[in-house]
Amino acid sequence: MNYGIVRRVLGSLLLVEALLFLPGLLIGLYYGEASWQAMGISLIITLVAGGLLVLSSKHCSTQVRALDGLLIVSLGWVLVSVFGSLPFMFSGFIPRFVDAFFETVSGFTTTGATILPDVEVLDKGIQFWRIFTHWIGGMGILVFSLALLPALGIGSFQIFKAESPGPVAGKIAPRMKNTARILYLTYFSLTISQIILLKLGGMTLYEATVHSFSTMGTGGFGMYNDSVASFNDFLQMTLGVFMVLAGLNFSLYYLAYRRKVRDILENEEARFFLKIIAGATVVIMLDLIIRYGSGSWLAFRDAFIQVTSIISTTGIANHDYTAWPYFSQMLLLILMFVGGCAGSTAGGMKVIRVLVSTKLVRREFSKIAHPRAYSPIKVNGRILPNEIVSGITSFLSLHLMVFLGGVLFISLENYDLITSISAVAATLNNVGPGLALLGPSFNYSFFNDASKLFLTLMMLLGRLELYTVIALLAPRRWIDES
Amino acid sequence: MNYGIVRRVLGSLLLVEALLFLPGLLIGLYYGEASWQAMGISLIITLVAGGLLVLSSKHCSTQVRALDGLLIVSLGWVLVSVFGSLPFMFSGFIPRFVDAFFETVSGFTTTGATILPDVEVLDKGIQFWRIFTHWIGGMGILVFSLALLPALGIGSFQIFKAESPGPVAGKIAPRMKNTARILYLTYFSLTISQIILLKLGGMTLYEATVHSFSTMGTGGFGMYNDSVASFNDFLQMTLGVFMVLAGLNFSLYYLAYRRKVRDILENEEARFFLKIIAGATVVIMLDLIIRYGSGSWLAFRDAFIQVTSIISTTGIANHDYTAWPYFSQMLLLILMFVGGCAGSTAGGMKVIRVLVSTKLVRREFSKIAHPRAYSPIKVNGRILPNEIVSGITSFLSLHLMVFLGGVLFISLENYDLITSISAVAATLNNVGPGLALLGPSFNYSFFNDASKLFLTLMMLLGRLELYTVIALLAPRRWIDES
Repeated sequence: MNYGIVRRVLGSLLLVEALLFLPGLLIGLYYGEASWQAMGISLIITLVAGGLLVLSSKHCSTQVRALDGLLIVSLGWVLVSVFGSLPFMFSGFIPRFVDAFFETVSGFTTTGATILPDVEVLDKGIQFWRIFTHWIGGMGILVFSLALLPALGIGSFQIFKAESPGPVAGKIAPRMKNTARILYLTYFSLTISQIILLKLGGMTLYEATVHSFSTMGTGGFGMYNDSVASFNDFLQMTLGVFMVLAGLNFSLYYLAYRRKVRDILENEEARFFLKIIAGATVVIMLDLIIRYGSGSWLAFRDAFIQVTSIISTTGIANHDYTAWPYFSQMLLLILMFVGGCAGSTAGGMKVIRVLVSTKLVRREFSKIAHPRAYSPIKVNGRILPNEIVSGITSFLSLHLMVFLGGVLFISLENYDLITSISAVAATLNNVGPGLALLGPSFNYSFFNDASKLFLTLMMLLGRLELYTVIALLAPRRWIDES
Repeated sequence: MNYGIVRRVLGSLLLVEALLFLPGLLIGLYYGEASWQAMGISLIITLVAGGLLVLSSKHCSTQVRALDGLLIVSLGWVLVSVFGSLPFMFSGFIPRFVDAFFETVSGFTTTGATILPDVEVLDKGIQFWRIFTHWIGGMGILVFSLALLPALGIGSFQIFKAESPGPVAGKIAPRMKNTARILYLTYFSLTISQIILLKLGGMTLYEATVHSFSTMGTGGFGMYNDSVASFNDFLQMTLGVFMVLAGLNFSLYYLAYRRKVRDILENEEARFFLKIIAGATVVIMLDLIIRYGSGSWLAFRDAFIQVTSIISTTGIANHDYTAWPYFSQMLLLILMFVGGCAGSTAGGMKVIRVLVSTKLVRREFSKIAHPRAYSPIKVNGRILPNEIVSGITSFLSLHLMVFLGGVLFISLENYDLITSISAVAATLNNVGPGLALLGPSFNYSFFNDASKLFLTLMMLLGRLELYTVIALLAPRRWIDES
């Protein structure tokens, strides 16, 4: 382990985070809220801690190996969340550390699960920080930092390898620095576009900004207790469309910029993603019309918003879907696991893995008729190497095992099974709200501290796609032997 | 397709089934029950139908290709179940065809899910037939027939390939005829041993026979409404031990017969199976002691019986486990999917597949530290070919997809999600009873006909390990293209 570089990167992250406290602090000052002081103290503490860490690693080697990268990424999320929870505690809005930590991890991992029964009582500055964490987490604090770190002379590929969401990293630009910049610009432009549209639709600038941050990061924190239910149809549909955009692989936008329209149209993952959204929207719409008595427009709108919200793992709600027929609820539960595309801000297992999995199943069928045929798995016309295919199936197994183990752990609290199942599904897949006691009208405050910390771990496992964190937590022999 | 051979094999199956009606008929006659006539008429109809089918295929080719084998196996189970449901209808105990068919498929697939609210009202002869179907189904009607079919001059390997439970068929003896005979003898000896033990423990000969048939086939039908709750501890523990024995790979018994003790002790699947049983029994026992207030012996006994009953996919119950804490219920739900070992009479995904899956996950971890290392998956010290590994992961994905699709379909009836989830889990994995509305005190009678037929399909899919049936139902292009 190169602990020097670990300290330096983590210190840099804290310095960045200290800067990111500024907007919330300024908003607090502007509105004359008492909580600006909580933001200020948090900023200073984080600045000092980050500075000390960086200074302590002045003459370290700049080599980053695989396990160093894993350590940086995992510890990075935890550390940033610990310091990110300071404003909630200092302001008194979330006095207990476990709760504040839960809320902050939920923010940075873009989960959107809350322990707050009432989000409308928060000061604007604190509220902004809470939702801003989604936007920061959205592309990953470390991807932000990728433009900074190379300046420190650090080979950052190992970090990106552990960080980048999804199995197909896809080199957008040959050099890492450019990649980060392109992703950053795309993310920025989409957010600005959404803010403008929401503003035009009738939101205040503050509302528009906060909700764009929440949905572009596929987080789901909102500023109203009824989430987005009170917004007009135009605003709701805009949110729905941008959740789809946030759930697509961001390299598609780079292809769009380079006018490679054909590559976009032939992208199998995106097509599958859109097909699932269309299919799920239609069947839920029919379920709502036939058995819930909704009119056709409302049925379409609600189905579309809820499907895009859940599959993009955002978790906003315009309706308490736990009152819907069970068919629709079950479908939403399944969509939580599907998640968005690789290379998006969404969580879940990722569409590409589900797609490859269905291809593997179809191949087995074809083997019944043609036992000796060589039939490699292809995506976008290219053959997937066996290693990647095997990594994908192992990931799906691991995801399932962690999910089931998680449900067992949470069920020790003896709430009904759908509550336990959806608690783990909604955190591991970074969705936020669940079913039964965890529907969009409720929150996670009733769990005990052990469960809250455990669900926090689930959010981190989900965001870091499991292997990263588990590799660090697992006994050495697991890694050495297998 | 060679429809001649298909007709001949199906006809032979019906002739065998007609013979198997005899014990129930004789029991009915012995006890002077009116329902002996129902058995008699069913026998004659089945005999005539079978005879006509065989006669219609007098001069057919004896070549059996893959798809012929699939067709024989799938149609075989359906046909035998259709004729097997005649006694229930003719006797008036289950007048409606859908119900009688559900009950018979549940019997032959050794599922043990019932639509009967009261099983104690059945005549002894009909009761015997009902539970006898478990024993017949246990090793598969077709494995029975494997000793007959070669005499007809049919190359039966294709049939066995589709039929044999589990991915690793394992050639017990070089020739198929011997294999069938050895399996048959083992099954017979185990059943006789169990009957003797149960008789010694205080059951009547009829009770002992019927319960041995039910557990050796890992079915679960019983003759009492409280399943096995009224039996003494010795009887319950005997049932538990024999469910474990029925859930082990039967080739182990052949190894025992040939005194290859070391091979048995080193069998990874069996060890994993026993470890899961031990682990699950201990944690459920603790859960029952700590939170359900059971005394330690009862907690152990109930945990052991329920764990062995569920993991062997038998489904007998000595307690209404739906009243247990949710942790224990969740664990039982997971065990339903694990199932028994390959080459046993149990259902579920099979222990070997779960084992390989955990090995694949561990391999991914080791790849983090040693990215370039070549690490094949080994079972019992031998390397598994990539094709088998890929077949296993695809099977798990397919099992999961069928399960989720099934839950969506059943949830259209809008019962609570745990009822829908456990209905599909308990039928697809051939367990029988589920959770919530489908606990061991309840039954499947409240579902509508569409759901009942669908769950019947789930039982067949589970028993035939999915690919067989789906390959026949799927559109041709699925098989040809992929």
